[in-house]
Amino acid sequence: MRLDEQASGVYTIAATPFQPDGSLDLGSVDRLTDFYLGCGVTGLTVLGVMGEAPKLDHDESIALIRRFVQRAGSLPVIAGVTSPGFAPMRALAQQAMDAGAAGVMIAPPPTLRTDEAIVGYFRQAREAIGDDVPFALQDYPLGFSVVMTPQVLARIVADNPSCVMLKIEDWPSLEKISALRKLEREAAMRHVSILTGNGGVFVDFEMERGADGAMTGYAFPDMLVDLVRLSKAGERARAHDLFDAHLPLIRYEQQPGVGLAVRKYVLHKRGAIASDAQRKPAASMSAAARAEVDFLLDRLRRFDPRSPAV
Amino acid sequence: MRLDEQASGVYTIAATPFQPDGSLDLGSVDRLTDFYLGCGVTGLTVLGVMGEAPKLDHDESIALIRRFVQRAGSLPVIAGVTSPGFAPMRALAQQAMDAGAAGVMIAPPPTLRTDEAIVGYFRQAREAIGDDVPFALQDYPLGFSVVMTPQVLARIVADNPSCVMLKIEDWPSLEKISALRKLEREAAMRHVSILTGNGGVFVDFEMERGADGAMTGYAFPDMLVDLVRLSKAGERARAHDLFDAHLPLIRYEQQPGVGLAVRKYVLHKRGAIASDAQRKPAASMSAAARAEVDFLLDRLRRFDPRSPAV
Amino acid sequence: MRLDEQASGVYTIAATPFQPDGSLDLGSVDRLTDFYLGCGVTGLTVLGVMGEAPKLDHDESIALIRRFVQRAGSLPVIAGVTSPGFAPMRALAQQAMDAGAAGVMIAPPPTLRTDEAIVGYFRQAREAIGDDVPFALQDYPLGFSVVMTPQVLARIVADNPSCVMLKIEDWPSLEKISALRKLEREAAMRHVSILTGNGGVFVDFEMERGADGAMTGYAFPDMLVDLVRLSKAGERARAHDLFDAHLPLIRYEQQPGVGLAVRKYVLHKRGAIASDAQRKPAASMSAAARAEVDFLLDRLRRFDPRSPAV
Amino acid sequence: MRLDEQASGVYTIAATPFQPDGSLDLGSVDRLTDFYLGCGVTGLTVLGVMGEAPKLDHDESIALIRRFVQRAGSLPVIAGVTSPGFAPMRALAQQAMDAGAAGVMIAPPPTLRTDEAIVGYFRQAREAIGDDVPFALQDYPLGFSVVMTPQVLARIVADNPSCVMLKIEDWPSLEKISALRKLEREAAMRHVSILTGNGGVFVDFEMERGADGAMTGYAFPDMLVDLVRLSKAGERARAHDLFDAHLPLIRYEQQPGVGLAVRKYVLHKRGAIASDAQRKPAASMSAAARAEVDFLLDRLRRFDPRSPAV
Repeated sequence: MRLDEQASGVYTIAATPFQPDGSLDLGSVDRLTDFYLGCGVTGLTVLGVMGEAPKLDHDESIALIRRFVQRAGSLPVIAGVTSPGFAPMRALAQQAMDAGAAGVMIAPPPTLRTDEAIVGYFRQAREAIGDDVPFALQDYPLGFSVVMTPQVLARIVADNPSCVMLKIEDWPSLEKISALRKLEREAAMRHVSILTGNGGVFVDFEMERGADGAMTGYAFPDMLVDLVRLSKAGERARAHDLFDAHLPLIRYEQQPGVGLAVRKYVLHKRGAIASDAQRKPAASMSAAARAEVDFLLDRLRRFDPRSPAV
Repeated sequence: MRLDEQASGVYTIAATPFQPDGSLDLGSVDRLTDFYLGCGVTGLTVLGVMGEAPKLDHDESIALIRRFVQRAGSLPVIAGVTSPGFAPMRALAQQAMDAGAAGVMIAPPPTLRTDEAIVGYFRQAREAIGDDVPFALQDYPLGFSVVMTPQVLARIVADNPSCVMLKIEDWPSLEKISALRKLEREAAMRHVSILTGNGGVFVDFEMERGADGAMTGYAFPDMLVDLVRLSKAGERARAHDLFDAHLPLIRYEQQPGVGLAVRKYVLHKRGAIASDAQRKPAASMSAAARAEVDFLLDRLRRFDPRSPAV
Repeated sequence: MRLDEQASGVYTIAATPFQPDGSLDLGSVDRLTDFYLGCGVTGLTVLGVMGEAPKLDHDESIALIRRFVQRAGSLPVIAGVTSPGFAPMRALAQQAMDAGAAGVMIAPPPTLRTDEAIVGYFRQAREAIGDDVPFALQDYPLGFSVVMTPQVLARIVADNPSCVMLKIEDWPSLEKISALRKLEREAAMRHVSILTGNGGVFVDFEMERGADGAMTGYAFPDMLVDLVRLSKAGERARAHDLFDAHLPLIRYEQQPGVGLAVRKYVLHKRGAIASDAQRKPAASMSAAARAEVDFLLDRLRRFDPRSPAV
Repeated sequence: MRLDEQASGVYTIAATPFQPDGSLDLGSVDRLTDFYLGCGVTGLTVLGVMGEAPKLDHDESIALIRRFVQRAGSLPVIAGVTSPGFAPMRALAQQAMDAGAAGVMIAPPPTLRTDEAIVGYFRQAREAIGDDVPFALQDYPLGFSVVMTPQVLARIVADNPSCVMLKIEDWPSLEKISALRKLEREAAMRHVSILTGNGGVFVDFEMERGADGAMTGYAFPDMLVDLVRLSKAGERARAHDLFDAHLPLIRYEQQPGVGLAVRKYVLHKRGAIASDAQRKPAASMSAAARAEVDFLLDRLRRFDPRSPAV
């Protein structure tokens, strides 16, 4: 199956399971995939920033994609292929598609500094991976130092028919989503799927501004699935009640550096992975941080029984 | 009165009131100061980043400090004096102290790139403003691109007896606060006041990690005052309940760019300022954003009657 | 007199003379101005980056401009007014013009990240200083982290009739100058004066690409005057011979940090200023560096008798 | 053979030859290696920034190293292994050493912001590649945004016995080289090889400050070999005469972006490579730029007969 512009729902950023010694834990990939399937996600994104992608070598990256794809069955898998050059990007994209990925995701390099340079970059990237490989563009200025206006995004979408999805995690994101949807309504941009990131910290309003869903690694993808459903059904109060109950933890997971450790800690507590080990270099959780997360999970359980006992 | 290392509680970052035409609204300074006093804050910080300091010229800056100081009475006022050079910093600091400020606040310039350069900078800054002017150091890497380890902060504190306060708004901040307090317990650093920023988005745990209070511009300083009190009294559950009720709005106000517009919008709704005008360049709120904030205020009122009717 | 788009020749970036104790040496301003006049420059730029502008407080800045203007007579003086906000920019620009400046120079703040943001900034800056104040735009990506394409510069020129000069010190600059002149030939941009910077390290070819002259602080403005004249006269070989003889020193002066110290050292040796003191913070020359500069001056004297004996 | 701290002379940054269609031209590697050998270089560095390393995929990188090593015979080859993560760095380093490389070169990632983070990074990098793999540290703040003081470099050297070489291309570099050699004389740092970069634009004085040689890709490595020899022999005037004759071209090649195109253009003119093609994305030379380089080569030929006729 191929990723297309109708994609919606929750594409969870999949964690990458490691053994405590730092080796890749492919066995846990099955367990984790089953967990995500049970949460009701509509897709998986592997080799994202939160997936510790840069810590894997090329062969590990391919093995990881293959394993997720095999277990995910009919669920689409997007593979992050952001690379410092086009040759490694092409190699990774082609092998990912051969392994059964539904599409790839590309973020811009931090050196791009003008509208022209950004538009030109994505044209070259599309040529590198091939016109037939659907791709999502990751718009994450805080992480990549590249700011793309709605007009620039519209130019990229126009230039590249295979660009079918925008992952919008600009900060703030709300007006940008509105602006993109306005361009679409005015026929100044064709429809593409818009999923949101930033750890989910604005997903309540992002849905109301026109997003099709979320692409983030928050450790309760099942909550995100419920939220997207409630929001699309117009159940505004219930959607916000659910979101607000999770916000203290969402906020805690969004911390740079230690956030990934928190996410794996919670996934481990929920039984989704065998170990919360990260590969080095990694920020680990202090005893105080673990106690804080336990406290947040405990408080969350008052509102959401899925929160694990600590 | 002079700022010293015993400072605690809430030092609110004061908004700067403008007329709709962009001129400074000194009359509203009195009303705003009275509002802050009524909230129970222990101090004011003027000319902070959220105070639109760089948009004022030198004479306006001094007039603003003077007006806040006069109205604040015995309440200490800290003046931001961050400048591109030491001569304007000295001029501003001396005039601020002459106008009655209790101390000044200094952030590092974004060009500093090594531990030595950072330590050297604050030594020169202290010499510039004079040894007798107490100062707070603003540690805000996301805004200023300068990262200071706890060890570097301890060296700056040791070098400069007039450094009496650290405004910690590193992101994340929690382990840093713990590390600083550990250095103090081990007698590797003298006691200084630690207040926290980042829009208050982590103030619940920051207090528990050892902060003395908050220095941020969240539009409900009265909530922050309550939170600090509850946290210091060990009323953990009540502190978090209060914080969690406000977190959806705290999060909304923390957005870069538009956050200041939101803050002024809420302060205006609460009657604290006559107009929510910002001086240019400014990010303004869309109709959608205003409706979202109204919605958040409405929801907040279920838990906190101080939230204004919309 | 007013700066206009016919400006050409050498606008030297004027050093700011200090006493050894760091106080402003207004007396040396006269001597230095006379030196520049004797070199045959067509204009002066004061309060540039190399003029230690950020180290001056507001009153010193105005006093400095006034003194240069008074001594320069009919020679146009451009005042740098780059500021973190529009209010201080306006205050400085208006007082500079009142003091007799011919125009001002504005560089963009490092936070600008999109074409729209850049174009919008200069529109607001022009409104702040007033439509009647001619300004030069400083295009210096390496120093200010803002990259402007020729198209963006053309939009700024179109938007702002008072933009009469571009100081191009992109690195590299050569293709940019060609692209701007091509836009002009194609009537896609009105004529503006283009002066070049970067310490003069490419001024030989920049002239041949279409620059009108140089705006830099190299300690031999008289050489730059000769070079511009030779280049305009089509004396290509003589122009390059002269340039090449100076290039070892030009290159040495272009070093970030210590470059200003070198420049003042040479100006002092040439009798242009009473002291080579810089105001803190400053990078000073080691004994080894002074010996290297003496060595370069000595070698230069073989080709150019204006090089001072050491 | 293994790289060690006695390395000196010229380690040329080898260009990577491509066919006009962008495919790797392994045949030209032999011709290019022979050219470098004929120039008298003491070593080669492959997969450097100027070697277009990020544009190669993993298999191409290994093939390129292998080919250079085979042809270079007893000449040591250093392989750049800078990677976004430690797993790809380890994979590349081990395969490079298996292919016969003498050592590897590592630059820090741009995210490092404190002395501790830098020192910690190189400890982890050394663990990743293995204690037995000699490595050069590349100190290039302008390219990588990481500033390392001499003290930090000394800590890295102390921590990692396999760190045998520093490539110093800080800008400016002169005082840093002096500071490092002073630490060595004071026994605060063991001896390591110091080679310099920055396109060679300061190599004349860098040698006099204590460098052991140059590691740069200037298209006249034979000139660099002569310069290093003259400088070590104390023939100061002759060394500077030679350097000054080349400086106009050295300066031209040092331009970011287009510099690599210039370098390949000259190497092609000298017969060292079959084509000056670069792999995309690449800045190409305009007709004006080619004419300027031809002009510079023509002028250079007056002083150095090795400059090719144009």
